[in-house]
Amino acid sequence: MSTLYAVVVTASDRPGMMSAVTKVLADHNANIRYVDLHSAGEHADIYFEVTLEGPPDALFADLKRLNGVHGLEEIPSFAKIYGKRIIVMGGGAQVGQVALGAIAEADRHNIRGERISVDTIPLVGEEPLADAVRAVARLPRARVLVLAGALMGGAITDAVAELKRRGVIVISLNMAGSVPDAADLVVTDPLQAGVMAVMAIADTATFDISRQRQRRY
Amino acid sequence: MSTLYAVVVTASDRPGMMSAVTKVLADHNANIRYVDLHSAGEHADIYFEVTLEGPPDALFADLKRLNGVHGLEEIPSFAKIYGKRIIVMGGGAQVGQVALGAIAEADRHNIRGERISVDTIPLVGEEPLADAVRAVARLPRARVLVLAGALMGGAITDAVAELKRRGVIVISLNMAGSVPDAADLVVTDPLQAGVMAVMAIADTATFDISRQRQRRY
Repeated sequence: MSTLYAVVVTASDRPGMMSAVTKVLADHNANIRYVDLHSAGEHADIYFEVTLEGPPDALFADLKRLNGVHGLEEIPSFAKIYGKRIIVMGGGAQVGQVALGAIAEADRHNIRGERISVDTIPLVGEEPLADAVRAVARLPRARVLVLAGALMGGAITDAVAELKRRGVIVISLNMAGSVPDAADLVVTDPLQAGVMAVMAIADTATFDISRQRQRRY
Repeated sequence: MSTLYAVVVTASDRPGMMSAVTKVLADHNANIRYVDLHSAGEHADIYFEVTLEGPPDALFADLKRLNGVHGLEEIPSFAKIYGKRIIVMGGGAQVGQVALGAIAEADRHNIRGERISVDTIPLVGEEPLADAVRAVARLPRARVLVLAGALMGGAITDAVAELKRRGVIVISLNMAGSVPDAADLVVTDPLQAGVMAVMAIADTATFDISRQRQRRY
């Protein structure tokens, strides 16, 4: 069975450094899930998450030996710290209320050992929203999108269909436009929509979203 | 001047693939800022952001030619879509109210061309919170942390000091414990704390956080 390791490598910030680090990972058959680089002047923190079959000691030793690497620290993974993500986007008034419901409900589950975070962006306009919906597929750990507005359709609806194909659950407020018809679930009350979004992905909840598909509350 | 490019490469999901892709990036002197891999069965989407000095055509062509690569698409970067991030963590009751203030204020700035998102997690306990505070330094595009609780100190305060050294602004609610003394700014009302967090990083606002350090409202 493979184990997930999260590591920060402090290294010189120059082209080729990331390639050198990932080459060492490949040499050890580490499967890279996530890499991020934070620059701070001439040094950079390279944060990565890999899965490995065996113990990580030889890999860590080779990384430390690499030219340009100044330090290495094993840390808790983002999945462990921030957990599954619910993304809420749309009009500020509605996004705020959905967030309120989702945060209160996530609190109840996180106390029992879950880790669910609620991430939001207030946005206006068909194209910016369609781009933001499509980008949810690329967000690490994003599991549910809640669309919180009064009118959404056109390019946003196309983006919703694409996102659903990639396995993200889409909940829509009851609103004008074609988005509600494309969503997995339509909820009229924004607080309730936030609560249901959390219940849909909490292992501590007994709410089966697949039984709710196409329903309206 | 270097330009930022965001690209999705669809490739076979196997060890070594990421190393092969990053080697091509290094050969073209592309400076990698962010790489993320989303698995979907035998294929994976490798999403990356790089800065390049010249035009990207030769790099894109070499990536497409790579053994195991099935497709390549240029897309808008996360910075363009979700922008700067405010992170709110602590007790569910307070996190919800801070989020409400921050989302309403972010809406006002995003309408004028800003991109600010508000990301939250309700959490309980000194160690989980300290870990989550420390991890904010590794979150892409995180600019402000708001600590929203009734009692925070000890390991959380140490983590706050570390985070401030890494350039993240820390706002604390007025609460028991040593965290308020360690924060850049203390705000009693949670809605106001959310609004001020947005003002502190919005280019469309005229609020200079450096003039507010150590103040209490």
